[in-house]
Amino acid sequence: MMRAVDIIRKKRNGEELSREEIDRMVGGIASGDVADYQWSALLMAIVWKGMTAGETAGLTEAMMNSGLVVDLGAIPGPKIDKHSTGGVGDKTSLILAPIVAAAGVSVPMVSGRGLGHTGGTLDKLESIPGFRTDLDLHAYKDVLRRCGLVMIGQTAEIAPADKFLYALRDATATVESIPLIAASIMSKKLAEGIDGLVLDVKTGGGAFMERFRDARRLAETMCAIGRSMGKRVVALITRMDEPLGRAVGNAVEVAESVQCLRGKGPLDLMEVTLELAAEMIVMGERARTIDEARGLCRRLIADGRALERFRRMIEAQGGDPRVVDDPTLLPAPRRRIDVTSSRTGIIGRLAARQIGHATMLLGAGRARVDSTIDPAVGIFLHKKAGDHVTQGEALCTLLVNDESSLAEVTTLVARAYSLADDELTVAEQVLERLGS
Amino acid sequence: MMRAVDIIRKKRNGEELSREEIDRMVGGIASGDVADYQWSALLMAIVWKGMTAGETAGLTEAMMNSGLVVDLGAIPGPKIDKHSTGGVGDKTSLILAPIVAAAGVSVPMVSGRGLGHTGGTLDKLESIPGFRTDLDLHAYKDVLRRCGLVMIGQTAEIAPADKFLYALRDATATVESIPLIAASIMSKKLAEGIDGLVLDVKTGGGAFMERFRDARRLAETMCAIGRSMGKRVVALITRMDEPLGRAVGNAVEVAESVQCLRGKGPLDLMEVTLELAAEMIVMGERARTIDEARGLCRRLIADGRALERFRRMIEAQGGDPRVVDDPTLLPAPRRRIDVTSSRTGIIGRLAARQIGHATMLLGAGRARVDSTIDPAVGIFLHKKAGDHVTQGEALCTLLVNDESSLAEVTTLVARAYSLADDELTVAEQVLERLGS
Repeated sequence: MMRAVDIIRKKRNGEELSREEIDRMVGGIASGDVADYQWSALLMAIVWKGMTAGETAGLTEAMMNSGLVVDLGAIPGPKIDKHSTGGVGDKTSLILAPIVAAAGVSVPMVSGRGLGHTGGTLDKLESIPGFRTDLDLHAYKDVLRRCGLVMIGQTAEIAPADKFLYALRDATATVESIPLIAASIMSKKLAEGIDGLVLDVKTGGGAFMERFRDARRLAETMCAIGRSMGKRVVALITRMDEPLGRAVGNAVEVAESVQCLRGKGPLDLMEVTLELAAEMIVMGERARTIDEARGLCRRLIADGRALERFRRMIEAQGGDPRVVDDPTLLPAPRRRIDVTSSRTGIIGRLAARQIGHATMLLGAGRARVDSTIDPAVGIFLHKKAGDHVTQGEALCTLLVNDESSLAEVTTLVARAYSLADDELTVAEQVLERLGS
Repeated sequence: MMRAVDIIRKKRNGEELSREEIDRMVGGIASGDVADYQWSALLMAIVWKGMTAGETAGLTEAMMNSGLVVDLGAIPGPKIDKHSTGGVGDKTSLILAPIVAAAGVSVPMVSGRGLGHTGGTLDKLESIPGFRTDLDLHAYKDVLRRCGLVMIGQTAEIAPADKFLYALRDATATVESIPLIAASIMSKKLAEGIDGLVLDVKTGGGAFMERFRDARRLAETMCAIGRSMGKRVVALITRMDEPLGRAVGNAVEVAESVQCLRGKGPLDLMEVTLELAAEMIVMGERARTIDEARGLCRRLIADGRALERFRRMIEAQGGDPRVVDDPTLLPAPRRRIDVTSSRTGIIGRLAARQIGHATMLLGAGRARVDSTIDPAVGIFLHKKAGDHVTQGEALCTLLVNDESSLAEVTTLVARAYSLADDELTVAEQVLERLGS
């Protein structure tokens, strides 16, 4: 019997772990043979020494196999999911899944919650009265079959080893490791029973991977895992310097998503959303080229079929589908407070991280995993980089219930904006594409 | 409140921890605020990033203060201890403590048990019928006052944080870290209430620190800790390539220790023992120079006063003092089996590690912390490096009860010996002296 301590020592010494050794460590979580304090030491050794492509694929597979691997074989057609590494104002899932489903590609989505300055798809969806994200796997398949899309949270059956390791990493400062991040994401996604995956790896001041080269390495690592497991994976590296779109929060982001599905979305948000959607549609073989897929997306928005899918999913998951037509049915804050500009000029920079942090302080996000969130609050951005502003004009509106951190929030938001010296050129949202 | 995860992150990033942060982590062991899995991640980060002298001293002090710091103020005269980093056949404590006590320096010794190929003072002492090493602190002080020396095991009151961390390091491959080793040793020793400490840091094939430069760094680190805490500390770096003396085991080492106290000890063993004893006597101001102290030691052996102290301690700790005069009262093995030389020549090398490992396999040592040991078994070495041997002559005698690993032991022992091409010059035992 291989001893955990010897496997830890091997990694500490910088040697490559065998598939058997990785299986032993992951298997030891469920059996109790490997203690959490041994795993955390191994995690720190991995942060230090890294993992080879083979080790990373092995860890992903072991974590995936620690639970149920969903079989979606009974559902006809291609099943493609999208995953984002997290950003501020990132509601792309809510918009693209209905579009892609309307194009004939099923989208089985297992999403996460927001943490720190980033938001989460589940929190946003739960701002819709009645909407349930805690479906069991039977209901999950049923909604997917009926609507072509479904959005739930991670269930206990899927990749329990990942759940264990994620909590441990969070408590031991071992989150920041590209192989561990990649294995965590991919183990859950590949357990969903999908045929392919489009990744949105964000980079910039508001992203988890602030530096482009880290985002690129993470994207490459995840593509390599997909390849080694015979799944098609494409990654887009996209900009997360300022928030995507104008709404940051939960209900307010649902409302903006509906606007997008009505063809009235902000340019930056629509650019990222349509690129990702087009990749999913091409991967699902419902278009031959990205251009063709992009055109299809625009038609599905224009003729209302995408919005119809969104409405259908909301209803299937217990939510009130009337929010699509009447956003006043969504939770609303008690107060709306404008933050105004002290100068006249052009916005040069709107820092996503500070806006995300301010939104969290208002109650829309979580400081800790067990924090509760307020679906009604958030920030609506009237001005973004490149916009003209005059002195006294509103930069943004704070959507407020609890006023206890208002002073701090106002200061953060004011600092998030800075004026430019010159006119700005609009930056491309997609920086690079990787994968097959 | 500082969060453990932030402190771990700081060390992971290679920053220096403050005294407050170290106190928080060590304090969190007893309070339960810091989980064992957080400590093991921090330990791995320390193995990776190291610790400054200030951090190491801080950790030592926090670990020392996690339990009782013994007050020996009521016992008159200097209190000096010795600590060895562990070797094979290392029974120097048993010999030097009675000598130093006879010289008027009290020796309050808290010792350890053997593990792996190395032996432990407590195991050796417990081969004396009736001898108890589990005295409480009251009895500890009482024996010290009456005999001038006492030898016990680590009690639950002394440095409990070290006990916790040691067990954790053992299970997480984080033992090999010089600051952690130094802090572990020093926290226990400085909690004994001593005025000064003489360290025997062993290096060579049979030592924990095989490389001289690691032994030197460990010695320097421990001396620096002593300085920062206002204690006199001297370290001798000594050779551990072959076993010290001729006896390796438990009862057999007690018998050899008695021979040494009768002035009939092997040269290598007596050289190390007297150097260490002389340092303790000078530190305790019972001699002005090492030469003078060495002379005093020889007189205390010659006139029987050192042996008398040994006899007195055995009696005070519940043991049968007659073993000093009649070694047949010590546990004896069922069989004595010679391992003979297949060639004629000069012994060039006798590998301590293999002899230690063979002794462990015979039952005299521990493969794991919870193994039980057989006091009667071991190995008696007739030939050591530099000795002439003729074909068929006994190299050593195995003292055997359980014959199940006899084949493996014989092979190991035969391989531990190798013949030299030329006459050897006798090597010095003490390689370097550090400290005040």
